[in-house]
Amino acid sequence: MASSPACNDKLKNRNRTPDSSTSFRERDKMEEECGVFGIFNSDEEDSAAELTYLGLIALQHRGQESAGICVNNGGELNLHKGMGLVENVFQERDFNSLRGRSAVGHVRYSTSGSSLPVNAQPLLVNSIKGALTLAHNGNLANGAELKHNLESNGSIFHSTLDTEVVAHLVARAFENNIIEALIQSLHQLKGAFSMVGMTEDSLVAIRDPRGFRPLSLGRLGDSYVVASESCAFDIIGAEFIRDVEPGEVVIINEEGLDSRKYSGEKNSSFCVFEYIYFARPDSNIAGQNVLLARKAMGRKLAEEMKVDADIVVPVPDSGIAAALGFSEASGVPYGQGILRNKYVGRTFIQPSQEIRDLKVRLKLSPIREIIAGKRVILIDDSIVRGTTSSQIINRLKEVGASEVHMAISSPPVQNPCFFGLDTSRRQELIANGCTVAEITEQIAADSLHYLSREGMLEAINADPDLGFCTACFDGSYRLAERYLTEEVR
Amino acid sequence: MASSPACNDKLKNRNRTPDSSTSFRERDKMEEECGVFGIFNSDEEDSAAELTYLGLIALQHRGQESAGICVNNGGELNLHKGMGLVENVFQERDFNSLRGRSAVGHVRYSTSGSSLPVNAQPLLVNSIKGALTLAHNGNLANGAELKHNLESNGSIFHSTLDTEVVAHLVARAFENNIIEALIQSLHQLKGAFSMVGMTEDSLVAIRDPRGFRPLSLGRLGDSYVVASESCAFDIIGAEFIRDVEPGEVVIINEEGLDSRKYSGEKNSSFCVFEYIYFARPDSNIAGQNVLLARKAMGRKLAEEMKVDADIVVPVPDSGIAAALGFSEASGVPYGQGILRNKYVGRTFIQPSQEIRDLKVRLKLSPIREIIAGKRVILIDDSIVRGTTSSQIINRLKEVGASEVHMAISSPPVQNPCFFGLDTSRRQELIANGCTVAEITEQIAADSLHYLSREGMLEAINADPDLGFCTACFDGSYRLAERYLTEEVR
Amino acid sequence: MASSPACNDKLKNRNRTPDSSTSFRERDKMEEECGVFGIFNSDEEDSAAELTYLGLIALQHRGQESAGICVNNGGELNLHKGMGLVENVFQERDFNSLRGRSAVGHVRYSTSGSSLPVNAQPLLVNSIKGALTLAHNGNLANGAELKHNLESNGSIFHSTLDTEVVAHLVARAFENNIIEALIQSLHQLKGAFSMVGMTEDSLVAIRDPRGFRPLSLGRLGDSYVVASESCAFDIIGAEFIRDVEPGEVVIINEEGLDSRKYSGEKNSSFCVFEYIYFARPDSNIAGQNVLLARKAMGRKLAEEMKVDADIVVPVPDSGIAAALGFSEASGVPYGQGILRNKYVGRTFIQPSQEIRDLKVRLKLSPIREIIAGKRVILIDDSIVRGTTSSQIINRLKEVGASEVHMAISSPPVQNPCFFGLDTSRRQELIANGCTVAEITEQIAADSLHYLSREGMLEAINADPDLGFCTACFDGSYRLAERYLTEEVR
Amino acid sequence: MASSPACNDKLKNRNRTPDSSTSFRERDKMEEECGVFGIFNSDEEDSAAELTYLGLIALQHRGQESAGICVNNGGELNLHKGMGLVENVFQERDFNSLRGRSAVGHVRYSTSGSSLPVNAQPLLVNSIKGALTLAHNGNLANGAELKHNLESNGSIFHSTLDTEVVAHLVARAFENNIIEALIQSLHQLKGAFSMVGMTEDSLVAIRDPRGFRPLSLGRLGDSYVVASESCAFDIIGAEFIRDVEPGEVVIINEEGLDSRKYSGEKNSSFCVFEYIYFARPDSNIAGQNVLLARKAMGRKLAEEMKVDADIVVPVPDSGIAAALGFSEASGVPYGQGILRNKYVGRTFIQPSQEIRDLKVRLKLSPIREIIAGKRVILIDDSIVRGTTSSQIINRLKEVGASEVHMAISSPPVQNPCFFGLDTSRRQELIANGCTVAEITEQIAADSLHYLSREGMLEAINADPDLGFCTACFDGSYRLAERYLTEEVR
Repeated sequence: MASSPACNDKLKNRNRTPDSSTSFRERDKMEEECGVFGIFNSDEEDSAAELTYLGLIALQHRGQESAGICVNNGGELNLHKGMGLVENVFQERDFNSLRGRSAVGHVRYSTSGSSLPVNAQPLLVNSIKGALTLAHNGNLANGAELKHNLESNGSIFHSTLDTEVVAHLVARAFENNIIEALIQSLHQLKGAFSMVGMTEDSLVAIRDPRGFRPLSLGRLGDSYVVASESCAFDIIGAEFIRDVEPGEVVIINEEGLDSRKYSGEKNSSFCVFEYIYFARPDSNIAGQNVLLARKAMGRKLAEEMKVDADIVVPVPDSGIAAALGFSEASGVPYGQGILRNKYVGRTFIQPSQEIRDLKVRLKLSPIREIIAGKRVILIDDSIVRGTTSSQIINRLKEVGASEVHMAISSPPVQNPCFFGLDTSRRQELIANGCTVAEITEQIAADSLHYLSREGMLEAINADPDLGFCTACFDGSYRLAERYLTEEVR
Repeated sequence: MASSPACNDKLKNRNRTPDSSTSFRERDKMEEECGVFGIFNSDEEDSAAELTYLGLIALQHRGQESAGICVNNGGELNLHKGMGLVENVFQERDFNSLRGRSAVGHVRYSTSGSSLPVNAQPLLVNSIKGALTLAHNGNLANGAELKHNLESNGSIFHSTLDTEVVAHLVARAFENNIIEALIQSLHQLKGAFSMVGMTEDSLVAIRDPRGFRPLSLGRLGDSYVVASESCAFDIIGAEFIRDVEPGEVVIINEEGLDSRKYSGEKNSSFCVFEYIYFARPDSNIAGQNVLLARKAMGRKLAEEMKVDADIVVPVPDSGIAAALGFSEASGVPYGQGILRNKYVGRTFIQPSQEIRDLKVRLKLSPIREIIAGKRVILIDDSIVRGTTSSQIINRLKEVGASEVHMAISSPPVQNPCFFGLDTSRRQELIANGCTVAEITEQIAADSLHYLSREGMLEAINADPDLGFCTACFDGSYRLAERYLTEEVR
Repeated sequence: MASSPACNDKLKNRNRTPDSSTSFRERDKMEEECGVFGIFNSDEEDSAAELTYLGLIALQHRGQESAGICVNNGGELNLHKGMGLVENVFQERDFNSLRGRSAVGHVRYSTSGSSLPVNAQPLLVNSIKGALTLAHNGNLANGAELKHNLESNGSIFHSTLDTEVVAHLVARAFENNIIEALIQSLHQLKGAFSMVGMTEDSLVAIRDPRGFRPLSLGRLGDSYVVASESCAFDIIGAEFIRDVEPGEVVIINEEGLDSRKYSGEKNSSFCVFEYIYFARPDSNIAGQNVLLARKAMGRKLAEEMKVDADIVVPVPDSGIAAALGFSEASGVPYGQGILRNKYVGRTFIQPSQEIRDLKVRLKLSPIREIIAGKRVILIDDSIVRGTTSSQIINRLKEVGASEVHMAISSPPVQNPCFFGLDTSRRQELIANGCTVAEITEQIAADSLHYLSREGMLEAINADPDLGFCTACFDGSYRLAERYLTEEVR
Repeated sequence: MASSPACNDKLKNRNRTPDSSTSFRERDKMEEECGVFGIFNSDEEDSAAELTYLGLIALQHRGQESAGICVNNGGELNLHKGMGLVENVFQERDFNSLRGRSAVGHVRYSTSGSSLPVNAQPLLVNSIKGALTLAHNGNLANGAELKHNLESNGSIFHSTLDTEVVAHLVARAFENNIIEALIQSLHQLKGAFSMVGMTEDSLVAIRDPRGFRPLSLGRLGDSYVVASESCAFDIIGAEFIRDVEPGEVVIINEEGLDSRKYSGEKNSSFCVFEYIYFARPDSNIAGQNVLLARKAMGRKLAEEMKVDADIVVPVPDSGIAAALGFSEASGVPYGQGILRNKYVGRTFIQPSQEIRDLKVRLKLSPIREIIAGKRVILIDDSIVRGTTSSQIINRLKEVGASEVHMAISSPPVQNPCFFGLDTSRRQELIANGCTVAEITEQIAADSLHYLSREGMLEAINADPDLGFCTACFDGSYRLAERYLTEEVR
């Protein structure tokens, strides 16, 4: 059966290998750009880098491309960063030059185009106002415009980071005090940013007026801690205090903690994908546990769809929580029908083409004894390009599934994200151009079901004041449309 | 409450850190010694090393200390091995010197005492009968005796491997043909051994007469493949043919496959712990899928114990299958109450004592929202030292569990293993000396339940002819007692 | 005998270990800061990086701390740099991302304080005028002042490099054309700079108006090449054309080579230490071969001093050329009395204090059979701290020298350098505070002789128009005294 | 002009690149196989490994392929070895597991064919007589025969090392005492071996009855030290006692030093190439300093040949000593006409063919100002393949030499070595097949002169009882001809 022309275009893109290199990267997921962490005045002399190291390990799921820690040693800022996982970037000896009681850390995901050492964070710069280090999660909608204006006034850029734009704005602000200059600069920024900054005497945590990306505040003994997610507090034994609010600047120094609202924005636009996929299941955001939200989405999905089936099987690990919820609500038994090989990592070598074609078998293994002869409901949290779904369904049929009904615990992803997710593959979104029927055919499922937008929001059940950004589902970017128009390819 | 004197001794040992180094190793598990793999005459020129590499990745769970591949390049055997994970030992360039159409591979786990480069496998030696490479999973009960006899006759040893003992026996056998000499040597071996060997023209797969360790035979196109577990066939797209039988030698060369029985032993002693913990859930052994066996153990455990509870929570990943079975049989809901951080690996640094105490939080995170206020049944596959169980229960209570009932899907481990598992920590087995009541108190559980030996065997439900080694539970080593007596400390 | 108070202060500093780390670095020498290289339009497609790699190996003696290459791939500038020797920074695979026909390279020496990855060169930045990469040898006298002014106008700094100051000046120049902006910026710079820059379409070579540091122009087929020393031309088979002149800018692009004088300065101040120690003996500078100049200094030294002796022995390798000249002029036989161990490098480990004290023996070994019973004239090119001289003389006496007369083929180094040499150890210059008699006593020589300033200049015998900077000998910095005053510690 | 057929064959071989890999290795030299070191009972607790490390650095010129140290820690032997230079094989942390007061070390050179990790030394094995580690310099003439006999009796081999043959003989000797067994085994060995062994309580130093390879005994405080050359004593501050004698076994243990002669051989066959090229110039062998011997060879060469010339130029570093002697005796001035780049090492990358052709320029650079217009006598210690000589002469002519007369401070190398030098390239010896006139033409010299055998021996002027092996010059292997015949290809 032929698909619509728009869908046909998608499919061509979908089948292009996104990465011709020999390293193995699972690419069929929306991907987060960053995780940030900060600590002020750790109890133990010189332990700030070590606690930040632990926090970054807890946040590793938010970015695996590069990692960095900048410490404050009596007013002198020292930085160590590099490409790779936190465990690989930091060796024991590196901590010798990372003494201090305050620190800022960062983990980064990036599209391959900008995967350069110079783009690792935190950024550390000196200006007339002193030293400043910045770690940033998000994406500025007007980053390109600001950069152009700065360059027109003589600024030079070493990287392609939005963070460097912010550092220039701070240096050029009329305020002499670096903290005040930083706050002044925020008014020029459009888009998503959860930032942690450190000066010679203060730690600063900032969230954009819409609150696209998460940022939480905690306490460890007499120290304050900030992190992208609360799971980073648990790992170091810190106590969660509250989320940093949209439009809030939290300034922590020897005199204590000071909070300021720098924006009158009333409506928040929290990224709903944090609940769907990005955040760690044990994190709490806006008062709601992420795992419970995912389970509720699965339950709601079961209510919305009616399929007779013998077993509910999750795509591991992304579909597990929703599958458990689905099973509970539907009464269809839950089964571990697909296993994930935890030893297959980034450095896997694919020496030849023939071998390369075997790679999908390495990561996910269906279990014949559980699948054979069954009508399977296969649960995942989302479909991006559709290639992985297609391969999994194919393998389930190989081991004898009589039917495979794909059920997705979120709506179709039809639009790219401009607020901090990987937007490099807009043209590859299968739901942008293909109808549900066309996708069903493409992935060779017996049926395909998405959770409705309303069902999803109802399931999340977070703080009622929390507004969501659902632009990837409905295209409602709601702000800064002029920047986005330029950027959309 | 005071424990019995025997138990008190255990507890002292239990609380000793087993490893004073700074590297993080999860130690509170029985640990496998090896995985083996072999391929003869791969279809594609020079692809044997690459297929073996994939097979070893599938078998990585059986050993993470060292890895090696020996290839046969037109009769010349070339070896590359090293310390670490398969992914780290082999770089792309290494395959340049690993050309050939047949290969043998090995992954190894070892106690730290013998964690030396010289003990990595496969072993490659030359003798008057030609070159021979051997990869071995298991443990010889009479290894020390054979070594002593060989040394008395002038043999020298480079390693502490049983494999080297076998190589000497082959060299000294009166048979000139190397394959026949290898078969002749087997009669001198007592204990557990699943071996893959390669000569200048043949591949050989051998299983001891009792069949302690698994070994399977498969086919990929015109090639034969052998592997410790069938999951290694799936990864390369090979087809499972059958298990190598206890007491069988399979010889594969240009003339095809030849099978010989070299032992009249009737009773098998397959290691029951392969079903409980070691084998990968997607492997099939003796006709039974491992995951289903684990689920059935959970179901049987639910039948044997009666506890009122609100939720069944597995220790991830070891308790998941049994917990699902338990939940189905008992009707108590299954919940993902504990998460595992997949980014925490071997190289994690613990810079200071204070930080080190936080490490248990890194790997396993309980989810308060799921646990709080609940009566929890916590499922795991076994208890070895008891330290991990104790820490997990403690953390569950911290996040508000009202009761924690620990349920183990196998009987108490009271005896060390002499057939291929890590036996270095006999004195640390908490169930060797402590009663169930004493253990319950030690791990601070509200109650503790073990699956009965009979329930376990019934649940596995494998080929009725399959006999099991359950010596770790009941001390019935059944053979070669004289060797064991000497070795038991 | 007591020394003068000024001398006593020196000696305290002299005996302080300059580097508490465990890595072995020979520190008792003036040290160069950089070597630069550039090539435009290499004949072979994509060979620019490889030729630059070779050129940097030839220039490795000018800096061993970091190395980098920036290539121009059809207008896109790509950079790879890192810490360490050229051979270690560049692996074969790195050349895959360094395609292009034009390139700029840099090797750097630095004091340990600023030995940071961020200070590796070339620097690559983007501004409104386009991309610009700069590689710099020298030191700006007014660097701190310029940086302060730039920061006052809102510039931010990522490094402590003078090069970054220049990049900012270019970005802020009123000229829109990036080459013109660069030339405009030069008028603001005081001090020493030999620079190679590259834009999207041009290569630029610049030398400061006084010509402190060397810079030569060559040709390889249809390509132009620039390098700090002519030895880098020989290595790639390029032909020397001429030195870039003081105050000259050479612009090379598709239209050919254009030369401009941007300064009316008449007097040059070429660093005399290039002839004494820094430059490679096979380089030619200002028409004079460096080795011949050194030999002539030795000959002149023999004429100036009168000592009866049996043998002339050089400190290898720095004193060899002068010793040969000395021997020829004096008739005293030349002897290889001290050997240098070429396998002792940077990573040498000194596990314990006792072992550490043995280290001086590792690098230099006197030969008893040549030295014993002889009156030795020991030749070196200069004395900086005096510690090495002292140790060598001590070892010569140990093996039986009856007398050791130290002869130095340059005047006493009494002042730090502000134009590109390592100035971090001003207080350690033994000749700054101690008289020749005091130094003689300190190094336990039987006598000590320095070449006179006049003798040195006469010996060099370069182009008569070439003026020299001899500030390290006579304190005559001649320019920009106000900057230096601030900087002198 | 056409050459003789035998010569033509040589030339074909000569022009074949010996090594197709991309790593740069200077191959046109005879190459040594090993250096050995041992220390018993070092004064400082646990310093044996560190002192051995220093000793191996001093012996690094004898082998750069692999390095290893085995320590004795209270009777337990622990080994660390690896591929590469001493500095690279040993990191600071490695010394943690190398505690002990006695140690044996080894550096190895090898032909590429056997450049395998398994061939690194020292060898450490266990036998019925206890643990034994062996480090070996030399080559057994009957190694293959012994290996065959051992294999016929059931021995297995892990490596291709002669050392492993010796270990087997020890294990099979009827003597139970391991030291006595080792001495008994020596009677079976033919050929060259200077060995250091260590048992659980003793250190043993052994030299073959002909004394082909050097081995010296020294003292450091209360410790005894043995080393291939006396330069290793100087580096650790040890005092030279005497050479170990041909046919002597020195046994050192808690009871002191015991010496035994195990052979009645009267005539020694010391390798004359140790004086010509291998040994370090500051070593003393048989009472003669190596540098002085080389200088005397140059002097003798000047006496033997009569050429009018303007300058004597050495090939650095191998020809320097002879050139100085030549200059003194002839009155022709000595000149540093060729420089060596000390930063070009093993890892140099040659990315493309065109670049590769430039590589000879990297290592050696002639200085035009010294060479141009001169009649040059070019001095080297030997000619092996002749390719380097040819290239150097070519470059001297390029920079303007009017004549180049090549003078070699030893006779023509016409035969391979079977006693410890690299024999893999017999067919590449240019003097084996080509007359002096033909070689002269091939290397495009104006004339070519070799030192006579008599002149060489007279110049060395060592202990009159010292007999020399000069088989590489005259083919007089003098012993074990039957082994050699088989081996000669």
